[in-house]
Amino acid sequence: MSNPDKTTKPSRRAFLAGAGVAGAGLATGAFAQDSAITVQPWMQELGDGVDAAPYGMPSPYEKDVKRRTVEWLTADNASSINFTPLHNLDGIITPNGLCFERHHSGVARVDPAEHRLMIHGLVDKPLVFTMDDLKRFPRSNHVYFLECAANSGMEWRGSQLNGVQFTHGMIHNVMYTGIPLRLLLEQAGVKPSGKWILAEGADAAAMTRSIPMEKALDDCLVAFAMNGEALRAEQGYPLRLVVPGWEGNMWIKWLRRLEIGDEPWHHREETSKYTDLLADGTARRFTWEMDAKSVITSPSPQAPITHGPGRTVINGVAWSGRGTIPRVDVTVDGGMNWHEARMDGPSLDKSMHRFYFEFDWDGKPLLLQSRAHDSTGYVQPTKEALRKLRGLNSIYHNNGIQTWSVDADGRAENVEIS
Amino acid sequence: MSNPDKTTKPSRRAFLAGAGVAGAGLATGAFAQDSAITVQPWMQELGDGVDAAPYGMPSPYEKDVKRRTVEWLTADNASSINFTPLHNLDGIITPNGLCFERHHSGVARVDPAEHRLMIHGLVDKPLVFTMDDLKRFPRSNHVYFLECAANSGMEWRGSQLNGVQFTHGMIHNVMYTGIPLRLLLEQAGVKPSGKWILAEGADAAAMTRSIPMEKALDDCLVAFAMNGEALRAEQGYPLRLVVPGWEGNMWIKWLRRLEIGDEPWHHREETSKYTDLLADGTARRFTWEMDAKSVITSPSPQAPITHGPGRTVINGVAWSGRGTIPRVDVTVDGGMNWHEARMDGPSLDKSMHRFYFEFDWDGKPLLLQSRAHDSTGYVQPTKEALRKLRGLNSIYHNNGIQTWSVDADGRAENVEIS
Repeated sequence: MSNPDKTTKPSRRAFLAGAGVAGAGLATGAFAQDSAITVQPWMQELGDGVDAAPYGMPSPYEKDVKRRTVEWLTADNASSINFTPLHNLDGIITPNGLCFERHHSGVARVDPAEHRLMIHGLVDKPLVFTMDDLKRFPRSNHVYFLECAANSGMEWRGSQLNGVQFTHGMIHNVMYTGIPLRLLLEQAGVKPSGKWILAEGADAAAMTRSIPMEKALDDCLVAFAMNGEALRAEQGYPLRLVVPGWEGNMWIKWLRRLEIGDEPWHHREETSKYTDLLADGTARRFTWEMDAKSVITSPSPQAPITHGPGRTVINGVAWSGRGTIPRVDVTVDGGMNWHEARMDGPSLDKSMHRFYFEFDWDGKPLLLQSRAHDSTGYVQPTKEALRKLRGLNSIYHNNGIQTWSVDADGRAENVEIS
Repeated sequence: MSNPDKTTKPSRRAFLAGAGVAGAGLATGAFAQDSAITVQPWMQELGDGVDAAPYGMPSPYEKDVKRRTVEWLTADNASSINFTPLHNLDGIITPNGLCFERHHSGVARVDPAEHRLMIHGLVDKPLVFTMDDLKRFPRSNHVYFLECAANSGMEWRGSQLNGVQFTHGMIHNVMYTGIPLRLLLEQAGVKPSGKWILAEGADAAAMTRSIPMEKALDDCLVAFAMNGEALRAEQGYPLRLVVPGWEGNMWIKWLRRLEIGDEPWHHREETSKYTDLLADGTARRFTWEMDAKSVITSPSPQAPITHGPGRTVINGVAWSGRGTIPRVDVTVDGGMNWHEARMDGPSLDKSMHRFYFEFDWDGKPLLLQSRAHDSTGYVQPTKEALRKLRGLNSIYHNNGIQTWSVDADGRAENVEIS
């Protein structure tokens, strides 16, 4: 791999020149009066009125834009995963209807009027809150990514899944509205010995995770809204713990209980699961923070190049549990030459970032990769480097560089190169 | 009205002290072991699996969170308006399914494979683009508000509609993804005499508006996505013109044609409509920019205070077509005392901003108002001041301060005070 410092940096002049070059490849951009002045059928009839959809849905032409599951991955759909269609999306907001789901006993059907949040254990004053109680506390709004620790997990032993939806789609990025957990803990009064929190969900799995007090007091939220509206049921309606930058399994859904203790609980989901088994048989534990990662979402196996040679947009996303993404590099030749991508859209802490790289495709096969740099200076590693460190046993925390091979017809495949 | 400079400014100390005070009002926050340890029915059964909703919808408990229309407002639902339920929302992102709609011949059912965008008129090279052609140009992502010029228009003659959804709900705020219009115009080569653009929609109304070239070259987008996914049909699928900070009627939906000319076209929607009839019978024209505005979304007539006296959160939104909102003031006594609200969430150019004001309600009647300051120093005026300038004939560009009266039971009403 070439030196990251030797990448080319896009200048405004290069960007505009690039846009100019685009014309050459846009053969269909020629004036064709017959198609342009056609008065299409939809201009000749009234459309639906404003009473048609009190809560709107996507156009029927977008019916293939949906969450998908992988049948062989789990024994039952009530303890499974579906995946965000990253290849269909743009910008940095994931629409609520397309946010990936992972649940261990299905989507709990919680009645918000009956739901309670209890704070107890090593506190001065145990408390029980109704939803109405909680909404009297000051609230805060942040766009955060949520990534499952198992995202890209099936790829440790080589490329398995042919589509960015499946290799990287256990992630979403939404604006959460919630109460800083710190304010609720202050209300209960945490005793000096209180160093850990057990968060528990109100689903049939009663999902639990241990959270260190330092993180709880820093930036955790008890969230009740996402992208402006109430949480979706599959995302923990009516209440979810938001643990910014940390693995998704800790973001307890249907949050009902916060117990304060002096040490972690060592429950199932932080011992036999969500720990990283190394080659020597020992396991890494409490690997909460999500390392910097990026992936090209288009072209990709589910989003081939259909327009032939000429001006082509490479589209992708990057994120880091430790801050922002000031830079992403892209290669079209498997790492022989790296180019600095164009970052676009708001750059927010612990949020997804969008990058683009526009280039003129000569119609020859491509090996596409992207490489994220985060605001701490960390650079996304190769899968090879990760495997040297951790072996092949783990399914968690694979943030290695992804490769798509594109053939002369524009079709893309999930491959590995070394 | 008191001097805006005499408002109180919240300090971090006051914020924390306020949060402490909250406990006093939160009587239901007492420990009640029986309700907290109840194992609810939803913990005793498996929920829905991940195959249940490939495109997800809100919880059934949120069924009243929806767009609503006002039956008497228009003769037919195919040329009408429905309104965003602002009182139910939080943060700054409007979910796509709840974005207000305004159309003049119903929602056009456009097939993206057959859709074309033509650029012609005073250009070197007339062009026709398919959707695939357009997606080869560099794209950009921005969160912008879209407000109808008629938002709050029914209030010129006094309070008419009892709910913030109806008085202020002709607005939404989403992340748009699109091609800078400048790049498409560069491709066609605008002649020196080309000073105006006619944008035309592919609906049965063939909606048209004249846009000055300076704005087109500045920040307009030809957008194909909103909040990450394809535009919704009612928002112009597959292509809409985005005209940041300017009145919504110019944001042509189902965009099919951009004609370059040397003067405006003076079509119906910029002469007999979307102009502001003054008291002397003359009309203001080309009043494109949306002035700074704010409104308290809760408490409000559709969102009464239900918890009785004590700690209460005032929640609201503010926006300006000229920049950002660094400050909003709130009064609970009809303007005798103003307090600086707490701004929260990203502050983005020409985007909605969220503000909060937490206070201890003594249970006596309230007169709630909010007043936005934008980044140019402009301060939101009273309705009275606006009426002195413009009279009562117009229905457009009412950005006056809104008043809600709240009675001792927490019920809110749309009122006017002088």
